[in-house]
Amino acid sequence: MAHGFALLGDRVQLTIVGNTADDLELHGLHISPDLDTVMYTLAGLANPDTGWGVRDETWSARATLERYGEATWFALGDRDLATHVVRTARLRAGARLTAVTSQLCLSLGVAARLLPMSDDPVRTKVRTADGWLDFQDYFVRRRHRDEALELRFDGIDSARPTRAVVDALASAQLIVLAPSNPFVSIGPILGLAGIVGAIAGSGAPVVAVSPIVGGAALRGPADRMLRSLDADAGSAGIARHYAQRYPGLVRQLAIDDADAADESAVRAAGIQPLMAPAVMRDDADRRRLAEVILAAAGGRPG
Amino acid sequence: MAHGFALLGDRVQLTIVGNTADDLELHGLHISPDLDTVMYTLAGLANPDTGWGVRDETWSARATLERYGEATWFALGDRDLATHVVRTARLRAGARLTAVTSQLCLSLGVAARLLPMSDDPVRTKVRTADGWLDFQDYFVRRRHRDEALELRFDGIDSARPTRAVVDALASAQLIVLAPSNPFVSIGPILGLAGIVGAIAGSGAPVVAVSPIVGGAALRGPADRMLRSLDADAGSAGIARHYAQRYPGLVRQLAIDDADAADESAVRAAGIQPLMAPAVMRDDADRRRLAEVILAAAGGRPG
Repeated sequence: MAHGFALLGDRVQLTIVGNTADDLELHGLHISPDLDTVMYTLAGLANPDTGWGVRDETWSARATLERYGEATWFALGDRDLATHVVRTARLRAGARLTAVTSQLCLSLGVAARLLPMSDDPVRTKVRTADGWLDFQDYFVRRRHRDEALELRFDGIDSARPTRAVVDALASAQLIVLAPSNPFVSIGPILGLAGIVGAIAGSGAPVVAVSPIVGGAALRGPADRMLRSLDADAGSAGIARHYAQRYPGLVRQLAIDDADAADESAVRAAGIQPLMAPAVMRDDADRRRLAEVILAAAGGRPG
Repeated sequence: MAHGFALLGDRVQLTIVGNTADDLELHGLHISPDLDTVMYTLAGLANPDTGWGVRDETWSARATLERYGEATWFALGDRDLATHVVRTARLRAGARLTAVTSQLCLSLGVAARLLPMSDDPVRTKVRTADGWLDFQDYFVRRRHRDEALELRFDGIDSARPTRAVVDALASAQLIVLAPSNPFVSIGPILGLAGIVGAIAGSGAPVVAVSPIVGGAALRGPADRMLRSLDADAGSAGIARHYAQRYPGLVRQLAIDDADAADESAVRAAGIQPLMAPAVMRDDADRRRLAEVILAAAGGRPG
């Protein structure tokens, strides 16, 4: 989604606020999976086959980590590992995650601004039948098979959004909630004190993009979380999720043509449905979706 | 050298005390080049072409580190990097270097005991015409081109040898000073408070092996350091170095047949010359040198 807007070039000044509640520490390294996926994608380095990690990756370090008895279910390729080594070293030297992320993006030639939602730690925990799990334990190690019964975001009450995030939202001309999981990807960002207020105060149109197409999540457990956590389903469920949790915040919800049947239910939730080609298979798809959102929001990019 | 003794199998209970004064911190990682070279060699993982690092190595992380603007003159391969990541994580978690080294060796199937000389930091600095340099800056980045005018070992006065090292020396039946650089590899170990006393107190024969063959160091700057720091040269210079700095400590000095001319000068320094095939090109050479030393020391392995 971010890539789609980046493809519009100078027509858009793109700032991405990234979720850090699924960050983790592994082998003593600070790993920021959401930030990295965006960074690698915008740098043209993403692995198209996996949706995470770096393309042309090698796995020598992982084989060695395994020999040392380290847990390797969170697969770190050699190129990716270098990112975590550098991030960790700079954080330990006293730099803030915002500054480190900015340096890494600059080094990789990313033109957009990528901002961690916070420089303070927030960690998502998922309650399952087996108890509370760290997010990546639930998501990667157990492949989000477990039913998510409850979520909590450790640290969310004391974490502050950064000045850069608040300023970017306050001055935005269009705010898009990406077709990410509204519970575990969008939720922590909106859960930080001051974020919803900054969005509302900006006066910018707020367009959410449904991660549900044809009733199912394009990837990940968003559809199952909708059922287990909201007792709801489909893109209509996404609309009701945003409308109930953040009243008045989201003006439009982009839903795929395959979900046309949800149109009236979205409207009934108080959100304008925006029919859009939401499945992004290639850069042309990504760009088209960005264009549709931009046009619907009044063509005022920012 | 250590590998030669390891090849003798059950006939020898091998303990290696490794120099840690050339350890360094790079990319926030604790790197122990001397320990790692021994560990990789005894694990059968050493790179035969370089004399450092791991065989079948890949270099993806290094390329990425370079993109991030990190200094990459100290070349870290992907497999090697995993060692440093794990070591650093375990040290930060509170483990001592001795324990971490032991775990890593166990994981790699190293049968010998590899002991860091100390769990406390000691750092070698080399004074050159350009001033004081960190050891690896002098050794690797500047390829030991500079004349070494003076050495110092920061931390040596407060660092203590570990209990394990002192106990191993006290109970040894044979102590061999490897054909390493007597200034920067052997020097820091012997410079720790209590080490020389523990060696002398053990009553074990002490055999040093000259790193000089045919008047020149087999590798590294030992020959040039002999001239610039001791105003001496050759294997005779090595004998005088040990005899003057550690009076009465070294009983025998193994020198290569190519240095037969140095035999009487070694004897004049109060050390018995031991003619030995000191150039180790393959495992047969390594084993033969170990056999010669073992036989000369009275055949009492330990």
